[in-house]
Amino acid sequence: MRNAPVLLTPGPLTTSMRTRQAMLVDWGSWDRDFNQLTANVCEQLLAIVGASASHHCVPLQGSGTFAVEAAIGTLVPRDGKVLVLINGAYGQRLAKICQVLGRSYSVFETSEDQPTTAADVQRLLAGDPAVSHVALIHCETSTGILNPLADIAQVVQRHGKRLIIDAMSSFGALPIDAREIPFEALIAASGKCLEGVPGMGFVFAEKNALAGAQGNAHSLAMDLHDQHAYMAKTGQWRFTPPTHVVAALYEALQQYHEEGGLPARHQRYAENCKTLLQGMAAIGLRTFLPANIQAPIIVTFHAPRHPRYQFKDFYERVKAKGFILYPGKLTQVETFRVGCIGVVGADGMQVAVNAVADALREMQVLDI
Amino acid sequence: MRNAPVLLTPGPLTTSMRTRQAMLVDWGSWDRDFNQLTANVCEQLLAIVGASASHHCVPLQGSGTFAVEAAIGTLVPRDGKVLVLINGAYGQRLAKICQVLGRSYSVFETSEDQPTTAADVQRLLAGDPAVSHVALIHCETSTGILNPLADIAQVVQRHGKRLIIDAMSSFGALPIDAREIPFEALIAASGKCLEGVPGMGFVFAEKNALAGAQGNAHSLAMDLHDQHAYMAKTGQWRFTPPTHVVAALYEALQQYHEEGGLPARHQRYAENCKTLLQGMAAIGLRTFLPANIQAPIIVTFHAPRHPRYQFKDFYERVKAKGFILYPGKLTQVETFRVGCIGVVGADGMQVAVNAVADALREMQVLDI
Repeated sequence: MRNAPVLLTPGPLTTSMRTRQAMLVDWGSWDRDFNQLTANVCEQLLAIVGASASHHCVPLQGSGTFAVEAAIGTLVPRDGKVLVLINGAYGQRLAKICQVLGRSYSVFETSEDQPTTAADVQRLLAGDPAVSHVALIHCETSTGILNPLADIAQVVQRHGKRLIIDAMSSFGALPIDAREIPFEALIAASGKCLEGVPGMGFVFAEKNALAGAQGNAHSLAMDLHDQHAYMAKTGQWRFTPPTHVVAALYEALQQYHEEGGLPARHQRYAENCKTLLQGMAAIGLRTFLPANIQAPIIVTFHAPRHPRYQFKDFYERVKAKGFILYPGKLTQVETFRVGCIGVVGADGMQVAVNAVADALREMQVLDI
Repeated sequence: MRNAPVLLTPGPLTTSMRTRQAMLVDWGSWDRDFNQLTANVCEQLLAIVGASASHHCVPLQGSGTFAVEAAIGTLVPRDGKVLVLINGAYGQRLAKICQVLGRSYSVFETSEDQPTTAADVQRLLAGDPAVSHVALIHCETSTGILNPLADIAQVVQRHGKRLIIDAMSSFGALPIDAREIPFEALIAASGKCLEGVPGMGFVFAEKNALAGAQGNAHSLAMDLHDQHAYMAKTGQWRFTPPTHVVAALYEALQQYHEEGGLPARHQRYAENCKTLLQGMAAIGLRTFLPANIQAPIIVTFHAPRHPRYQFKDFYERVKAKGFILYPGKLTQVETFRVGCIGVVGADGMQVAVNAVADALREMQVLDI
């Protein structure tokens, strides 16, 4: 087996060997043992978000985007209207999903370093009574920006509207409690802050909303009402589940609890982020976002302005030193991104910072 | 790690330890090494079906059904019409997909022990010029029945119609060559006869058809035109890929070639099937299908008629002896199913037959 570099990316990310070793067993997808594994995973996920009483957890094969599309397709009725709040590529994707699915929608876009505010949402909802749902990215992975979820959720509830949250990059690491933050659906995936491997998403869907969603979906495979109804009846996934991915997530959840659950995971990522920010600042690299809206998930840095800087070269040099970075996703500014999540601690982040510094020194661009 | 039973199921099935060990590495989904892995897997898959010149291989996150839905949604235009040939649950599912997607369709259903014939298709196409596509299950997993793909493909081509083949259970084990069997799309998945783990499907889509399919799809995540265009441009999957599943499939393909490719895989499964059929006949268990339409993939057996026979009890006893069977999927007759596929040989099948015999003896139902 090759010695794989540490993934400082927003997922897939570095998992523990124990999590990967859980994939050394083949499971029968119809077998009771596997059904119990699935049920247990769903219960644990619900508990993390404080939604055991109010929501169902509906797992779905595929990537996180599949689960986001499934949530919109299943929960927004064909005559509904979605207000999509955008400040990055994942917000754009939400709008694109509404468009492809033929759901009526409007967008509110702020610049990529500008969170949507509750006041914005208040004004928008007051101005458009046709809106039935508001869709929001909690932590926008394009930049790492954190949107003020709790405040927005209150406004959405006050207006009697329903909130769909893409919490792909934040679930499990940043606190969200369904008993305090009203939402109709929250979506995340296996291969993010829970430190499982990629291959399944899941949607926490409010029980009454899901019960009333029969026939909404545009798709058979992505019909969460059908997926849930079948699982509730049989204990099984409707279509072949990614058995090894589910087993890895189960094992990752064991380690999540052993570490101390959300507070501990949050703290480790916050320390990773702090180490990264301090170290990169010492090198002279500037962050794209101000600290107060920076989530401890992924950090966007301005690329060095030096003419000898090329991302590809930089990337390969840092990779050779054991770390995989992530390209920027902004159209206006040249950036690169570094994830703070996965099986890595502050010591590892410091080694990563050193690798970045060494790479830039080799490239002779360190007069940044 | 628990000592897992052998899965005699139609997938997920038993994989080799070497295949599972390929999942012990985390891959960066944006990284060149992973892009090369994906490209290599796609090239190998195309070569197996003789479609390197004529078709693109479009991998898709999720189960096989996701890929089937994606193929229909992407390749059948919104004003197209699908003739769905049905003799089991997976044919029914094809029709259901057409219905949910709002594609016009008609069905032709034969009983579950009756293959669709080329003459049927000839008559149906002559009678309905509105049909644009014919959709067929090659080997219907509900029973194990083999439909006469080559003959049907010729008829479809003669009528200038397009064929979509669900080859989920047959691809890699039963010979299909795109240079001899004209098709617009053929769909299979990682966790079947290639002996990978479940978590991705793939569609071989005829190049011109795929190029002309922009805007057809009902879904963003399942738009194979978009999925292919992005991958062709960037080398990357559009949305987070199931990296470990892809790595396992790569390793499974290495072993596939080492074993001797399709002829060797076919022969091993045929021997498994023969051992199973002879052994079960010796016990006194009867197959649901006559031998001439039985594919060497999965075999349906009539349940013993004895009042002491309960599938659940039988299943648990056989499982305790190391083998996981599969329930029947027929509504009219009580049956159970035994797969011939996965990492198992004739010796293993004989042990499985012995386990079945012992279980039935323990249950005192062996006067079948």
